[in-house]
Amino acid sequence: MISVIILGTGNLANHLIDIFLPHKDIELVQVYGRNISALKKFEGEVNITTNLNALLDADIYIIAISDDAISVLSSQLKLKDKLVVHTSGNSSINALKTTNHKGVFYPLQTFSKDKSVNFKEIPICLETERVEDYKLLEKLAASISDKNYKIDSNQRKYIHLAAVFTNNFVNYMYKIGNDICEANDIPFEILQPLILETAKKVNNNPPAYIQTGPAVRHDYKTIDKHLQLLNGQEKEIYKLITQMIKETYGQKL
Amino acid sequence: MISVIILGTGNLANHLIDIFLPHKDIELVQVYGRNISALKKFEGEVNITTNLNALLDADIYIIAISDDAISVLSSQLKLKDKLVVHTSGNSSINALKTTNHKGVFYPLQTFSKDKSVNFKEIPICLETERVEDYKLLEKLAASISDKNYKIDSNQRKYIHLAAVFTNNFVNYMYKIGNDICEANDIPFEILQPLILETAKKVNNNPPAYIQTGPAVRHDYKTIDKHLQLLNGQEKEIYKLITQMIKETYGQKL
Repeated sequence: MISVIILGTGNLANHLIDIFLPHKDIELVQVYGRNISALKKFEGEVNITTNLNALLDADIYIIAISDDAISVLSSQLKLKDKLVVHTSGNSSINALKTTNHKGVFYPLQTFSKDKSVNFKEIPICLETERVEDYKLLEKLAASISDKNYKIDSNQRKYIHLAAVFTNNFVNYMYKIGNDICEANDIPFEILQPLILETAKKVNNNPPAYIQTGPAVRHDYKTIDKHLQLLNGQEKEIYKLITQMIKETYGQKL
Repeated sequence: MISVIILGTGNLANHLIDIFLPHKDIELVQVYGRNISALKKFEGEVNITTNLNALLDADIYIIAISDDAISVLSSQLKLKDKLVVHTSGNSSINALKTTNHKGVFYPLQTFSKDKSVNFKEIPICLETERVEDYKLLEKLAASISDKNYKIDSNQRKYIHLAAVFTNNFVNYMYKIGNDICEANDIPFEILQPLILETAKKVNNNPPAYIQTGPAVRHDYKTIDKHLQLLNGQEKEIYKLITQMIKETYGQKL
C-alpha cells in the first residue's frame, strides 16, 4: 500500500484523485487545494485541506498544479525527508524548491475535464534524485499504468516539445482542414476516418516511411493548384511544410 | 447485381478488386492494365486484358489510375453510352475525356499496399452528370461502404486540399516529433497514445474548441524555451503555427 497526498485541484489532479480513491493498492490520504469550492466535491471521500501547514503523513506528495506555481508551492512545504514530485512535462525536477527528496511523475496524455481516461494506456514519465525513491514512484506508476519510462529532465523537455508538434500543431492542422470543409459545405466528418487511420499508421511505421501527398511526390501541378485555393497564413504554412517535405525526400528521380 | 470493370492495377485498384471479387452483389467482369505482370495475379479469378479495345460489357467502368493518366486513357475508350468514373480526389469530373456518361467514385482514405482496409468505414465521394447514373453509383458505393456523400468537383478539390493538411502535413508533424525523440534517446512509442487520443478527440469536437498548448495559452515563457531547442525549418514552422494559433485565439485576457 502506497500512501499519497495530492496538492492541486485542476484537471490532472482530478483524474489522479478519481483513479487513486478506489484503488486497492493506493491510499489517498489527503487533497490540498487553495480553493475550498474545488475541494468540497471530495469531502467525505478523503481528508481535504486548504492549509499547507496541515499536511498529513504520506509516502508521496504529488504536486499537480500549473507549471508557474510549482516553485512557490514547493518552497512552502514544511515536510521533512519526504518524496515530493511534480507532474509537469515542461518543468525540470529542480523547479521543486524544497529540501525534501524530489521527483517527477508526468503522465503523457491530453486530459479533458469531463472525459474519463484509461490510465492503463497512458505512458508515465518518471524521474527521481535517489534510486530508492525511483522504486517507490515506479510502483505507484505501475499500479495505474502499463507503461512507465525513466525520463530525465532534459529528455522530458524534448518530449514536451515533440508533443507540441504531434498534439497541438496536429490539432491546428485539423482546424485548417475543418475551416476548408466549412467554407465549402463539406461535412468535416468525411475526413475523420482518414484522420484516425493516419494516427494509427504511425503505431507501426516510422512517420518518415509513410509520408504521402503531392510534396513527397514532387507533384508541382497539384501543389500549384492547392496554392491557388489558399490565402494568407494557410498559404504560408502550406508552402513551408511542402518545402520541408520536398527537401526531406530529395528530388524526384 | 452491378457489373463492374476496373481499369488500373495500382494500390486503390487492388483494394477495389479485393472487395469486389467476393462480393455477392457485384460482378467484377474484367480488369484492364497496361502491365501484364501486375495483371497476372488476378488470372483465373477474373478476365484480364491489356487491350483497351477488348473491354467487355459492364454497368460501370472504374478508372483507378494516376491523376495524370485519366484524360489520355479515357479518351481512348471505344465504349458507348456507358458510365465511366474515375477515383481521383484531385481531378475534376471533366478530366474524363469521353462521350460516355461521366462520374467520380472517390474513396477518401489513405491506402497502404499490403494492409487490408475496412471499406465499410471509408467515406466514398460520388458525382455523376446524370441523375440516373447517380443512383447506380450510389448503389455500388452503398454495397461496400456505410458512408457515401454527394460531392461535386469543386468540393472534392477542397476535400483533397483539406486532406493534405489533416493527413500529409499531420504525418510530417509526427515525423518532426519522431526526429526530436530520436535525437534525445526517447522511444517514439511514448507519444503514440497522445497521437491517437488527439485524432479521436476531433471525432466529437470541432478542432477549434479543443486546441491546447503554449500558443493558445499565450505562454511566452514556454514558447521561448521551445524556440531555444529548435533550429532551421523546424524553428520556422514552430514560429509560424504558434503565430497562427495566437492570432486565432486572440490575446490572453
